[in-house]
Amino acid sequence: METWINERMSGQIAFIAEVDKLKGVLRQTFIMDGSRRENTAEHSWNIAVFAMLMHEYAEPKPDLNRVVRMLLLHDIVEIDAGDTFAYDAVGYEDKEEREQAAARRIYGLLPEDQRDEWVQAWREFEEGETVEARYANAIDRLLPLVHNYYTGGQSWVRHGIKRSQVIRRIAPVEHISPPMWEFAMELLDRAVEKGILKEDEPGERG
Amino acid sequence: METWINERMSGQIAFIAEVDKLKGVLRQTFIMDGSRRENTAEHSWNIAVFAMLMHEYAEPKPDLNRVVRMLLLHDIVEIDAGDTFAYDAVGYEDKEEREQAAARRIYGLLPEDQRDEWVQAWREFEEGETVEARYANAIDRLLPLVHNYYTGGQSWVRHGIKRSQVIRRIAPVEHISPPMWEFAMELLDRAVEKGILKEDEPGERG
Ligand SMILES: [Ca+2]
Repeated sequence: METWINERMSGQIAFIAEVDKLKGVLRQTFIMDGSRRENTAEHSWNIAVFAMLMHEYAEPKPDLNRVVRMLLLHDIVEIDAGDTFAYDAVGYEDKEEREQAAARRIYGLLPEDQRDEWVQAWREFEEGETVEARYANAIDRLLPLVHNYYTGGQSWVRHGIKRSQVIRRIAPVEHISPPMWEFAMELLDRAVEKGILKEDEPGERG
Repeated sequence: METWINERMSGQIAFIAEVDKLKGVLRQTFIMDGSRRENTAEHSWNIAVFAMLMHEYAEPKPDLNRVVRMLLLHDIVEIDAGDTFAYDAVGYEDKEEREQAAARRIYGLLPEDQRDEWVQAWREFEEGETVEARYANAIDRLLPLVHNYYTGGQSWVRHGIKRSQVIRRIAPVEHISPPMWEFAMELLDRAVEKGILKEDEPGERG
């Protein structure tokens, strides 16, 4: 780690240099022009803006400032742990362990007080219990639907995803916002109609 | 524009689909592994995190929540107007006009109340007068130095930038934070020593 005269700032500059790597972590979702996979840094910006945009539909109303900060930090652990695809059951088995180790290393670059605060924001998101974390998690699950829809279902088609899988994945949306849930259901209907999302076999749904 | 049953949300979904294009707007700065140019969506995430990181050094202390929201939105106009390189005098001549038109079109997708609020946040950044806007502008000028330093001066070398040009560019940093200014000067000294930033001719400095 390169150090600077200001000792405290040295850790913070090392942190900003380190988290730059998030720009090289690729997700399964495509950017909306369909030209390439999205990286996690772009996604983090995108989801923070989406949180601002949709805030009015959430009930109870979360503290948007805490949501935005949480979302800006929530995927930094992917630098070491990688992006775990939403429908990858095997990847989810050791996801928590891998991400805990990543948090220790990456947030460990920060001065202790800041490290504790930022790790706490990330944990809050992961635990998903506060009003803010529930909202953040729900929209983090909703946004990829919009991406998939506007890219002709690129990651749904590639992985043969069915409507019921998406519905299970976005279940948290129903609890935090009926209008967002209605929008999601409308989007899935249209996606199935367009043939970019597989319909379930009879009896498989729900 | 594709519409949904929820009329208000239709504009908001059109907006999130539109601003996705920011992922394709390229800046002159490189990502820190030097492999490619940075896009403006990644930058927007990066600068918001940097604002959180450096907040403690700003005097007077800005409202960080307003800063973060302003920074997440500040470069959306680049979708139409493109990124204007910091040292491009010609590009700066019609920058404001191009960006005003872009703001009208892009924020115009939003419901009116939200449009007015978000355009106001962008204007506040551009006008640079509030404590929050001054801080946001200052760190937006500081972060590219860190990028340049850690990529062997990629955009400095390519454009033949001299130390005095960088110092003029980051002048706002001095007024909002002596510790950040000291860090910047230390970084420029090291950059000149490493030969990745041109020293000024005698008499040219300051
Ligand atoms: Ca900027």
